[in-house]
Amino acid sequence: MIIVKIGGGAAINLSAIVAGLAKLDTPAVVVHGANALRDELATRLGQAKRIITSASGIDSVFSDAAAIDVMLMAYAGLRNKRLVELCQQQGVNAVGLTGLDGRLIQGKRNTGIRTRENGKTMLLRDFSGKPQTVNITLLRLLLDHGYTPVLTVPIADETGCAINSENDDVVAVLARDLQAEVVVQLIEAPGLLEDAADPASLITRLERADLAAREQRLSGRIKRKIMALRQLSDHCSARIVIADGRGPDPLAAALAGAGTTIV
Amino acid sequence: MIIVKIGGGAAINLSAIVAGLAKLDTPAVVVHGANALRDELATRLGQAKRIITSASGIDSVFSDAAAIDVMLMAYAGLRNKRLVELCQQQGVNAVGLTGLDGRLIQGKRNTGIRTRENGKTMLLRDFSGKPQTVNITLLRLLLDHGYTPVLTVPIADETGCAINSENDDVVAVLARDLQAEVVVQLIEAPGLLEDAADPASLITRLERADLAAREQRLSGRIKRKIMALRQLSDHCSARIVIADGRGPDPLAAALAGAGTTIV
Repeated sequence: MIIVKIGGGAAINLSAIVAGLAKLDTPAVVVHGANALRDELATRLGQAKRIITSASGIDSVFSDAAAIDVMLMAYAGLRNKRLVELCQQQGVNAVGLTGLDGRLIQGKRNTGIRTRENGKTMLLRDFSGKPQTVNITLLRLLLDHGYTPVLTVPIADETGCAINSENDDVVAVLARDLQAEVVVQLIEAPGLLEDAADPASLITRLERADLAAREQRLSGRIKRKIMALRQLSDHCSARIVIADGRGPDPLAAALAGAGTTIV
Repeated sequence: MIIVKIGGGAAINLSAIVAGLAKLDTPAVVVHGANALRDELATRLGQAKRIITSASGIDSVFSDAAAIDVMLMAYAGLRNKRLVELCQQQGVNAVGLTGLDGRLIQGKRNTGIRTRENGKTMLLRDFSGKPQTVNITLLRLLLDHGYTPVLTVPIADETGCAINSENDDVVAVLARDLQAEVVVQLIEAPGLLEDAADPASLITRLERADLAAREQRLSGRIKRKIMALRQLSDHCSARIVIADGRGPDPLAAALAGAGTTIV
């Protein structure tokens, strides 16, 4: 079992990744993003991201109902179905689903973010949360009959409501419950970089034990990425590869050892 | 087995229809539209419908790639997943799919429309076509495990490419292959009307044998609707009910004999 996470950047070579899926000889589950598409659609609709600042000074994106609507259009509609179409055209019998469908990925909605406005503390609750359980019966049903599940956000909360979630967290619960042997993450970079500005600073190999130490001394996006990888490696014993999703055959390259491997 | 077709008009009472689905004691397959959502989204994106006129003078909507993108966002993304969410919240274990997923509905792409421009005849080919086959194995797999399939366009053509299709035609192949006992169509009117402008002119009962005769003497949208009903009734022996989708309990009302029944 292999889990392939496809980043949502504009430069990701979807068609080449799908060609790679068609050549796999193990069952695969695909999880994809669509952040570039989502941002472009939000701009076209004149619907800017709403950023809120918590009382403790941390900024985060606020997923109101309108933001979930845009996510549904970009992730579940346009990207998911165009990716399923690419799969069908290249011989991969894909079925595209969100976490809502059959409550495939169910999670816990966040309780809210404490903010201060005009001197008053308020609790703002949006539609976001963390995945907890996988409808493994439905996934196995599809996999056992030769289908390739192509998954994306939103996920379902405890009541069946659509909530936003980090794809990294979705991949972690999937890898845990499917006991994946390999998790490949295809991104818009050669892999994890020591210096984000320098593509030559690729980290080719990372020990699981080093992740926590790195997490301590880093900050910003890369810290979040390392934390997600640490959580993923805590969840499963899979080989984890982070590799370039922009090349002519990203999946084969990743499986052949390109990018960063966590061992 | 009941097939419930939910119209894509803005006044359709989705929540009440889903409450009705939750009370059914037979398996159901849902097919839904989203034309009002699609038109609204197309307007917001500044992407007007493209109408082309054939050499023989017939107008039709031209589904180019951008129009399919809008369909994917409105039908497969926003409407399908919000409907699945409503189902999950009301105890209906819905799985939302398009005809692309597992090639659930496969059809034949139209060969093109002959038009005349600057005195020259041209063949314009868009992404549209007619459904032919249903992946009945995948549908049965879901139904047998307690899931309610919630289906929408696009469908797949012979090569797996996304094409637009009439929902009436999708319902006809589904009713045929699922051997549905009942087909309920929930629309923004009390049922079929003798005079579209007069809600009191409801036709409560129509004989199958009368459909062809009516089709002959009518024109415009109602002619197309009667033709679709005739084709549906040719395809299957189901009881067909066309009823109001705007009331407090549309599905129960339709099953109790409201609207138009074709016998």
